Amino acid sequence: MEQPSSVLLIDCADQKGLVHQVTGVLYRQNVNIIGNQEFVEREQERFFMRTTFSGAVDEKAILSELAEVLPADAHVTLSRREKKNIVVLVTKEQHCLGELLVRHQFDELNANILAVIGNHETLKSFTHQFGVNFHLISHEGKSREQHEKEVLEVAMRYNPEYVVLAKYMRILSADFVKHFPHRIINIHHSFLPAFIGASPYRQAYERGVKIIGATAHFVNNDLDEGPILVQNVIPVDHTFSIQDMIQSGKDVEKIVLARALKLVFSDKVAVVGNKTIVFD
Amino acid sequence: MEQPSSVLLIDCADQKGLVHQVTGVLYRQNVNIIGNQEFVEREQERFFMRTTFSGAVDEKAILSELAEVLPADAHVTLSRREKKNIVVLVTKEQHCLGELLVRHQFDELNANILAVIGNHETLKSFTHQFGVNFHLISHEGKSREQHEKEVLEVAMRYNPEYVVLAKYMRILSADFVKHFPHRIINIHHSFLPAFIGASPYRQAYERGVKIIGATAHFVNNDLDEGPILVQNVIPVDHTFSIQDMIQSGKDVEKIVLARALKLVFSDKVAVVGNKTIVFD
Amino acid sequence: MEQPSSVLLIDCADQKGLVHQVTGVLYRQNVNIIGNQEFVEREQERFFMRTTFSGAVDEKAILSELAEVLPADAHVTLSRREKKNIVVLVTKEQHCLGELLVRHQFDELNANILAVIGNHETLKSFTHQFGVNFHLISHEGKSREQHEKEVLEVAMRYNPEYVVLAKYMRILSADFVKHFPHRIINIHHSFLPAFIGASPYRQAYERGVKIIGATAHFVNNDLDEGPILVQNVIPVDHTFSIQDMIQSGKDVEKIVLARALKLVFSDKVAVVGNKTIVFD
Amino acid sequence: MEQPSSVLLIDCADQKGLVHQVTGVLYRQNVNIIGNQEFVEREQERFFMRTTFSGAVDEKAILSELAEVLPADAHVTLSRREKKNIVVLVTKEQHCLGELLVRHQFDELNANILAVIGNHETLKSFTHQFGVNFHLISHEGKSREQHEKEVLEVAMRYNPEYVVLAKYMRILSADFVKHFPHRIINIHHSFLPAFIGASPYRQAYERGVKIIGATAHFVNNDLDEGPILVQNVIPVDHTFSIQDMIQSGKDVEKIVLARALKLVFSDKVAVVGNKTIVFD
Repeated sequence: MEQPSSVLLIDCADQKGLVHQVTGVLYRQNVNIIGNQEFVEREQERFFMRTTFSGAVDEKAILSELAEVLPADAHVTLSRREKKNIVVLVTKEQHCLGELLVRHQFDELNANILAVIGNHETLKSFTHQFGVNFHLISHEGKSREQHEKEVLEVAMRYNPEYVVLAKYMRILSADFVKHFPHRIINIHHSFLPAFIGASPYRQAYERGVKIIGATAHFVNNDLDEGPILVQNVIPVDHTFSIQDMIQSGKDVEKIVLARALKLVFSDKVAVVGNKTIVFD
Repeated sequence: MEQPSSVLLIDCADQKGLVHQVTGVLYRQNVNIIGNQEFVEREQERFFMRTTFSGAVDEKAILSELAEVLPADAHVTLSRREKKNIVVLVTKEQHCLGELLVRHQFDELNANILAVIGNHETLKSFTHQFGVNFHLISHEGKSREQHEKEVLEVAMRYNPEYVVLAKYMRILSADFVKHFPHRIINIHHSFLPAFIGASPYRQAYERGVKIIGATAHFVNNDLDEGPILVQNVIPVDHTFSIQDMIQSGKDVEKIVLARALKLVFSDKVAVVGNKTIVFD
Repeated sequence: MEQPSSVLLIDCADQKGLVHQVTGVLYRQNVNIIGNQEFVEREQERFFMRTTFSGAVDEKAILSELAEVLPADAHVTLSRREKKNIVVLVTKEQHCLGELLVRHQFDELNANILAVIGNHETLKSFTHQFGVNFHLISHEGKSREQHEKEVLEVAMRYNPEYVVLAKYMRILSADFVKHFPHRIINIHHSFLPAFIGASPYRQAYERGVKIIGATAHFVNNDLDEGPILVQNVIPVDHTFSIQDMIQSGKDVEKIVLARALKLVFSDKVAVVGNKTIVFD
Repeated sequence: MEQPSSVLLIDCADQKGLVHQVTGVLYRQNVNIIGNQEFVEREQERFFMRTTFSGAVDEKAILSELAEVLPADAHVTLSRREKKNIVVLVTKEQHCLGELLVRHQFDELNANILAVIGNHETLKSFTHQFGVNFHLISHEGKSREQHEKEVLEVAMRYNPEYVVLAKYMRILSADFVKHFPHRIINIHHSFLPAFIGASPYRQAYERGVKIIGATAHFVNNDLDEGPILVQNVIPVDHTFSIQDMIQSGKDVEKIVLARALKLVFSDKVAVVGNKTIVFD
């Protein structure tokens, strides 16, 4: 079966004839289209299109022709379907990192993990087991600004396309986030009803919830509030101790994060306002 | 296969030997035990036990003997496995009521729906189709107290064991609720993250959630905050309009409510603090 | 929010430029496209496209222009988004029929149930409660051919676009099926592992399965083997009696059937070989 | 919160008074019961009881007293809640092994992985990364009997309580299985409908299934037919290539296997006939 080798993502103000014009460009460029999806977000009248090709294409010619037919505000990306280069930030919990490292080693992640950066030493040797670089950048005795500056400096050395927060337990400032617009992915627990504050699992336990959830999302300035990528839940019941609930939370978090990364790293996600368009 | 004909539910302070003493009573009464489940809630050191019997039993003797061996604070119920008598409160939406009426008609609800009370006329003829009484008690031009008094008066005529709020869109006062402690069951939408306020589905739509949930719970003084019985979710995506999300919400609500009623009407639920113990 | 008023479904041999040419036709016809989805089935090199419009369109002109640009083998349907006319076949079980009749009454089915035909009288008065015609066509003392002929004759009076088998427990002959190619929808239980034969639930019980499933599919000559529309499962455990498993089976069947009908009646389904393409 | 330190599992012919007598033994032994569950399998009239204790107990005295009150055919195990010692058998696929090794390293498996045995070298260095022994026992040029004898000999050196088949792609003979009655756990793909034979994923693809499943089970003489522990499914659709389906299969397999091991290693599983009783 033919595999896609390029992905075209278009995001622009909606107007009549866009599909016809874009496919006209591709037809004239003799591109071998595998799949094509469009979506118009009605509230903002915004057009999204994802097209996959096989074979070699003249990227420059395609982009230049598209510029002529698309509205001025169009945002166009044409990616080779190559692995994304990523850096992973962690604190102490291993469940999400472990999922990523195993998938990475066996080529199921569609990404190169260039480095793991931790603010604790806990996951250093674990990361090294997989032959991946680990940078310890402790936050102890440093201002938030100073710590973040060091993390950014190390991350930037790798020139990552995406930064994955695999249970990184520190809040990132707007200054940090602006370096990676819609390119930082976070996983966090979330409950039904949602619990905010210091001890979410204790609250969930005391409230007697019957499901526990997880949300993967892009990070914007307001942590835990960026565009949602994937959400899922796992059932719990009255026999679950707080520890059992925490374990269930971990189990659903790693699955949800892995699913979100798969979508993002396959160029299947666009953003409109504070929402995602997921072409799956 | 033998069917249970009686259910014993015990709820008391935990102490050593409770199971031994309770089963001793049942053994001496020559009861034919089908199943037995115990659970100790560790935070409040509270003991819960559910036992099902087949065949005829001397209820009076069992209760009297149990009173001797159990702590003074014990709460004991011994129910014949007969259908529960219930009254259903509705407003305008039919999805939950329809689910209950169809199951009721084909004997899958384990309850007798004695009457439906609505504050709008919308579901009157629908209820009548199923040969069930419908009482219209409009709230128009009445104080909350007056309206609730009328609803209570009509409901009480039927002497219901449970009151089911099948999308009843008015808040019940503590005065009303106290007549039915842990005997009012409500269904409400709930999201991840939870949205409060006037237009939850609009908020969910704008936030781009990927799942929509529903929670069935006992009603206490604080509506939407009583002990949770059942929760579940249904996936949605960016192609869903607000209307589609509302429809998905209905689909999951009726399933969650039906599941909750099945548990409650089978005497499988006990309450500790603000949580449920579900012996399923 | 604008609602789609027409749906165009195209199914033809794949070739370069199809999307460009089809959208060219629509552009010249000044059609207001809401959404567009394409899919190429690689094994058979077959192209599928679904386009939704809002507003009035010149159907004749569109179809005529499309005929000029599409391959000779193209199968094109352009439907107004109106309710489908359907006939429902039943035997004795009410769970699927009840789901359809309630949704139908409250306009959630996207179909007009013109009539219900049963080979037993069991569901007659239930159907009448909803104001829907019921035809009893008993199979007693008739050959399969004779019975089917009578069912077909009655069904044909209504000129249905789709026939829904809502737990119709008789096998339909190829002769009957050919009148409704990919227009008969069936629901059947299915297990993991699958059980064939007289008592599937007894087999499932004895095997101790942990989930029970349901499959909705188009009917072709080989009953239970046509293109699959929707599948889902529901968990069970060792405490479930055979009766409990049957009830769980019913609960999942009605949900799966309702979901399948929603897809089909929204013109979201195409068929390739023995598989469905579901544009959802 | 108190953690259980011992688990008592009883399995015997049902008779009146069993719970009373067993709890009498525990009461006289002054045992601190945390939880208690009973179940009577009605078809075989067999009684199952699982009791968890905290603190130190006189195991010998308990077992000896139980022997006096239980029927002669009773099967009683009293386990300290210690980690199980296990050996894992693999072939070439890493997804299940990876899940086990990561959980093992972070103490989430409730087991000691003493060794991994593979009939290919593929997973050798991966296993070593986690500091776990790997034995390569190639089947090349050996009879089945000879190969199995070598595997058994190496496994036996570790005296494992359980053998886990983490995608071990060879069929075990009855001779091998009899050494580990209900102590070998296997994971295998399974579909709805089930596909047997050489290329199950190709069959699933061609049939256009909408869900893919996995089953974890104890191994008896008939591979893939022992008592089922856990089953679950994952949705797929027409856009999935065979490779995508295989990946989805892996994702659900590793979750299902991990869940099954958690149940078995917590002594929550009993077997009756070809079914499991799962006290969860």
